[in-house]
Amino acid sequence: MSDFVPKSENYIQLVQKAFDQQGFMKHLGVEIADIRPGYCELHLPYKKELDQHHGYFHGGVIGSLADVSGGFAGFSLLPEGKAMLTVEYKLNIIAPGEGDYLKGVGRVVKAGHTLTVTEIDVFGVSGGKEVQCATAIQTLMCVDS
Amino acid sequence: MSDFVPKSENYIQLVQKAFDQQGFMKHLGVEIADIRPGYCELHLPYKKELDQHHGYFHGGVIGSLADVSGGFAGFSLLPEGKAMLTVEYKLNIIAPGEGDYLKGVGRVVKAGHTLTVTEIDVFGVSGGKEVQCATAIQTLMCVDS
Amino acid sequence: MSDFVPKSENYIQLVQKAFDQQGFMKHLGVEIADIRPGYCELHLPYKKELDQHHGYFHGGVIGSLADVSGGFAGFSLLPEGKAMLTVEYKLNIIAPGEGDYLKGVGRVVKAGHTLTVTEIDVFGVSGGKEVQCATAIQTLMCVDS
Amino acid sequence: MSDFVPKSENYIQLVQKAFDQQGFMKHLGVEIADIRPGYCELHLPYKKELDQHHGYFHGGVIGSLADVSGGFAGFSLLPEGKAMLTVEYKLNIIAPGEGDYLKGVGRVVKAGHTLTVTEIDVFGVSGGKEVQCATAIQTLMCVDS
Repeated sequence: MSDFVPKSENYIQLVQKAFDQQGFMKHLGVEIADIRPGYCELHLPYKKELDQHHGYFHGGVIGSLADVSGGFAGFSLLPEGKAMLTVEYKLNIIAPGEGDYLKGVGRVVKAGHTLTVTEIDVFGVSGGKEVQCATAIQTLMCVDS
Repeated sequence: MSDFVPKSENYIQLVQKAFDQQGFMKHLGVEIADIRPGYCELHLPYKKELDQHHGYFHGGVIGSLADVSGGFAGFSLLPEGKAMLTVEYKLNIIAPGEGDYLKGVGRVVKAGHTLTVTEIDVFGVSGGKEVQCATAIQTLMCVDS
Repeated sequence: MSDFVPKSENYIQLVQKAFDQQGFMKHLGVEIADIRPGYCELHLPYKKELDQHHGYFHGGVIGSLADVSGGFAGFSLLPEGKAMLTVEYKLNIIAPGEGDYLKGVGRVVKAGHTLTVTEIDVFGVSGGKEVQCATAIQTLMCVDS
Repeated sequence: MSDFVPKSENYIQLVQKAFDQQGFMKHLGVEIADIRPGYCELHLPYKKELDQHHGYFHGGVIGSLADVSGGFAGFSLLPEGKAMLTVEYKLNIIAPGEGDYLKGVGRVVKAGHTLTVTEIDVFGVSGGKEVQCATAIQTLMCVDS
């Protein structure tokens, strides 16, 4: 990650601003935990509304967190005035999403002129102990915002 | 779809019951529109809480609807006492998710003993006019419920 | 498919020419069976060199055929002087690839300015009878050739 | 990877034996470079028959190498008498596959009773210098061999 140099000095504020404009992130309760160049960590505390029938985080919640974690990892490298669109992603759920909160970690693998590829891991965190629940690869496209 | 024979006579009730147990579906506002053997159509009316920064349905919402549309398409073919887990899915977003509601359509491609594969299309519907916004392939695993 | 209008009158020759330049297609033995705007059908006759341990077509062969079937479906819609790069694809193998030949069918789902999305089905054909062995989604990017 | 304990003492021989039975691997020219529990590294020297129109390794070759690298990473953890089937994989090509040889590295992320998930990276190697050309996620299923 140390290889990535942000194109905007205030990339953290740009990420926060774009994040705040997404009604769905507020609806879920997602919080930004860490933003670095090409890296984004998001947390999502458990609440009853986010579960599936066994009381775990719903797969759709895990997928949403993965998508956005990767999206803002890519967004962190953009110049001002640009935005990231999700072209596609592929997500494997490898364990139930369980715990006090979900932690989504997105990392840029390749930052191209038009397309950016990210890898994402999602963890369930219970009392500080992490269990990985999903892994994903995502393709993003840079567009004018 | 006419090839698929449900293993339970009351598969529609089983789908409805499993659906009703998912807090996240209620939180989003998803409704079952049609269930047939190996087929599931879900609707999700627009509300401000589901958008991203441009006022379209958030990608995470589109992904969640796709995941669940495919999941219940597969679930419709299960015998009583079984459930479907999402192993993985891959989703391409091909247009903004826009309109009065999102329509998710899941179809079973292959129903195996252990694994089921589905294809899913998601549409934005405005005044009766549909525009496809996503296409997906999903792998499900049958487990004891 | 009738919706797609080719940007070049001689799109069939352009596909054939690009296809002939790929050493790997010759090495496998792939043949073009049908090219229409946004559509490509390829055949690959069985030979011992293409199998895995059970005598079926190797998964890598199925994947290669899928990738190229989708790629040329997209290529058929390009103007002269452009080429298609595979950004990514996702392939589910749903049955063993078995028979006299493999048949790959690629169809364009969305032809964008920069990105094109295709869906691909692969079949094993024995004595005229087809059994689907794979389904895939692919993202392509248009570049200068 | 040190977390994975092989279920068979002679897992290296079992991998080699299964590998040797795949006619397609011989046809491509793939060689096993390293096998450890949950890990597989394969090399594929360049030859004219493996290229696409620009003289790079063909995308189908990259995909085949990725598929098999992940497959044998998973296979290395199986008890004798079992085999791995590829359920699905998703591959992003992030740079042209270029160099003296391709190097495929598969790692097991999750080894379940029925399903195994792997992550795979593919590199083009020129004079000892590696450039990553692809990244993939793969789902495998354990079956009786």
